[in-house]
Amino acid sequence: MPAADRRKLIIGIDIGGTKCAVTIAEMNGTILHRRSEPTRGEERSPEDVLECLAAHARSLMTEANASRSDMIGVGVSCGGPLDTESGTIFAPPNLPKWKAVPVKSIFEKALAIPVRVENDANATAVAEWKFGAGIGAKNLVFMTMGTGIGGGIIADGRLLHGTNDLAGELGHQTIVMNGPRCGCGKRGCLEAMASGPSIARLARESMTYGRQKRVLQLAGGKPDSITAAHVIEAAKEGDAFAKAILIEAGTYMGVGIANVIMILNPEVVILGTIAVHAGDLILNPIRDAVNEYTWKRSSDVCKIVPAALGDQAQDLAAIALWLQD
Amino acid sequence: MPAADRRKLIIGIDIGGTKCAVTIAEMNGTILHRRSEPTRGEERSPEDVLECLAAHARSLMTEANASRSDMIGVGVSCGGPLDTESGTIFAPPNLPKWKAVPVKSIFEKALAIPVRVENDANATAVAEWKFGAGIGAKNLVFMTMGTGIGGGIIADGRLLHGTNDLAGELGHQTIVMNGPRCGCGKRGCLEAMASGPSIARLARESMTYGRQKRVLQLAGGKPDSITAAHVIEAAKEGDAFAKAILIEAGTYMGVGIANVIMILNPEVVILGTIAVHAGDLILNPIRDAVNEYTWKRSSDVCKIVPAALGDQAQDLAAIALWLQD
Repeated sequence: MPAADRRKLIIGIDIGGTKCAVTIAEMNGTILHRRSEPTRGEERSPEDVLECLAAHARSLMTEANASRSDMIGVGVSCGGPLDTESGTIFAPPNLPKWKAVPVKSIFEKALAIPVRVENDANATAVAEWKFGAGIGAKNLVFMTMGTGIGGGIIADGRLLHGTNDLAGELGHQTIVMNGPRCGCGKRGCLEAMASGPSIARLARESMTYGRQKRVLQLAGGKPDSITAAHVIEAAKEGDAFAKAILIEAGTYMGVGIANVIMILNPEVVILGTIAVHAGDLILNPIRDAVNEYTWKRSSDVCKIVPAALGDQAQDLAAIALWLQD
Repeated sequence: MPAADRRKLIIGIDIGGTKCAVTIAEMNGTILHRRSEPTRGEERSPEDVLECLAAHARSLMTEANASRSDMIGVGVSCGGPLDTESGTIFAPPNLPKWKAVPVKSIFEKALAIPVRVENDANATAVAEWKFGAGIGAKNLVFMTMGTGIGGGIIADGRLLHGTNDLAGELGHQTIVMNGPRCGCGKRGCLEAMASGPSIARLARESMTYGRQKRVLQLAGGKPDSITAAHVIEAAKEGDAFAKAILIEAGTYMGVGIANVIMILNPEVVILGTIAVHAGDLILNPIRDAVNEYTWKRSSDVCKIVPAALGDQAQDLAAIALWLQD
C-alpha cells in the first residue's frame, strides 16, 4: 500500500486518580474504540496499572484491525509533575504511590510504538486547540477550573513546557499576598481563591444572617458538605447569596486571567469545568474583572470562552499529543 | 568573493524619547561605528527624525566601507505599542507626536535593506540572551526596572510576541487588587509598586518620625524631589529607612517575578537598571519573595540576576534583532 494511503491511528491513554481510559483514534479525533477501568492506584503497583493499560491498547489495535505500522504514536495524559523528555511521572497528587515511574519507556517496551507523556492540563490545552474552543488560534491559554486550577499555554503555535515542565501553573500565581493557604502550601494563590473548594470555602465563610439558606439546604444542612456544585445550583435558581459568591470567585479568577493576558497576549482563554457548569454566572464577573485589570488593546483581541470538549476532553487530550506539530 | 567570506554587518537604530543612536556592528556584537543625536521629538516630525537616522546609517556604512550586500538587516528598537509585522510604531508614551509611523517601510525605502522593528524591552531581552546574562538559555525572562517595568520573554528559544505584540507586559500584572493607581491607568500593577517612581513614592509616603532624614537630605530637602536613586544611595550608606523601602519594593517585585516563574518556568530572570544599581539591597528581598511565592521545584532551576550589558544594552538591543533565529 502506498504510504499516503496508510491508515494513521493514535492510541490515547488517560491516567487519572480514580479511573484510566485507553482509546484508539483517527487523526481527525474520531475515537474508534475505547476501554476504561478503575485505576485502583492504592491496591495496585504502577507497573501493574501500566501493564493492564498496555494490554487494553493491544486489544484496541486488534479490534481496529491495526498493525504497528498504522500507528503514529501513543499519547499519555496524566497528572504532573513529570518530565516530558524522559516520559517519567514523578509524584502526582492523585497517585501518591507513583514515584518516578518511567511511563514512556514502559509503554514503548510493551507496545513498540513511540510514546509521548504530558501533564493533563497541557494535554487538554492541545485538545481544545485542535478540536475544541481554540481551533485555529496561534496564542491560546487553557485553564482548568475544578478541584484545582491548572493551565496549558500555546504560544506562537507551540505548547510551552518551560525549563522543567512546570510552565503553565496558572493557578499558582499570587492573587492576594498573604491570602488564604493554598493546597500547594503557598498563600493567596489563584487556586486558593477561585477553585471549586475555594468557592465552597467562600460560601461557608460567608454564612451569616441566614443568607446562605438555599446553598446549605442543597448541602443537606451540613456546612462542611457545601461544594461549588451546590453554590452553582443555587445561583442558577436565582439565589442572591450564591450569585454573590460566584461574583467574588469570578473576580479573583478574572484578575488571574488578566495577569495571564498581560504576560502572554493570547487571542483566546478557554476555561474548564466550573466555567462550563456555571456559564455566565461566573463568566460575566470574570469578563468584568478582565476588562478592569487589562489594557483595552490586550483584552480587545482576547475572547474568554468555556471549554468545548466536555466529557470527551480527557480522551482527546491524550490523542491530541500527536497532533500538535 | 565567495558567499562565506562576505562580511555580515547589521545596522542598529535605537529610538528613544530623549536621544537616538545608530550603530553598525558585526554579528558577534562588535560595534564598529556609532552616531547619536538628541531626538527632539517635540520640534521635529517623525519623518524628519527618521530621515536623519537613515542618513546616519548611510554614513556609517561608508565609514565601515560596507556595501548593501554586506548588510544582513537593520534592527530598530523603540517604545511600544507597535506592530512588528508591518513595522509600525503606534503611540509610544515617550514620543507623543508619533502616531502610527510606518518605520519599517520608511527605512526600507531609504536604505533598501530589510528592517525589523521591535519594542525596546523585547529587543533588550534578545540582547541579554545573545550577549549578556542569558547566553545559552532556552527559557529566559528580562524585566526592565526603571521609570516603568517592562519585559521580554524568550520561551523555548523564541521571543514571544503574542496576538498583537503585547506579550511580556510583565509590569502590568496586578500585584495588589485595588492598589495604587499605575501610570497605565489600572490599579495595583507591579509597576505601581516597584518601579523607580514607586520606590520614590513609598519613600515619600513613609516620611514620618524623621526616619527619612538621609533620603530627604540627598533630595535637597524637598520631598517632591526624592527619586529611587536617592533611596538607593542612602541604602548603600547603610540608612535603615532607605533599606526598608528597598525591601518593601523588592518584595512586591519578587511576587511579580514569582508569578512569571509559575507561568513560564524560565531558567533565568534578568533584571535591569534598579537591580543593577541597588544590587543585593534589592536582589535579596526579591529572591526571598521568589522563594516564598514559587514552588521549590520551579525556583530551584531559576536564577535571578542583574542585567549584564549596562550602557551597551540599547545599542546591542537593536543589533540583536537580527541574531535571534
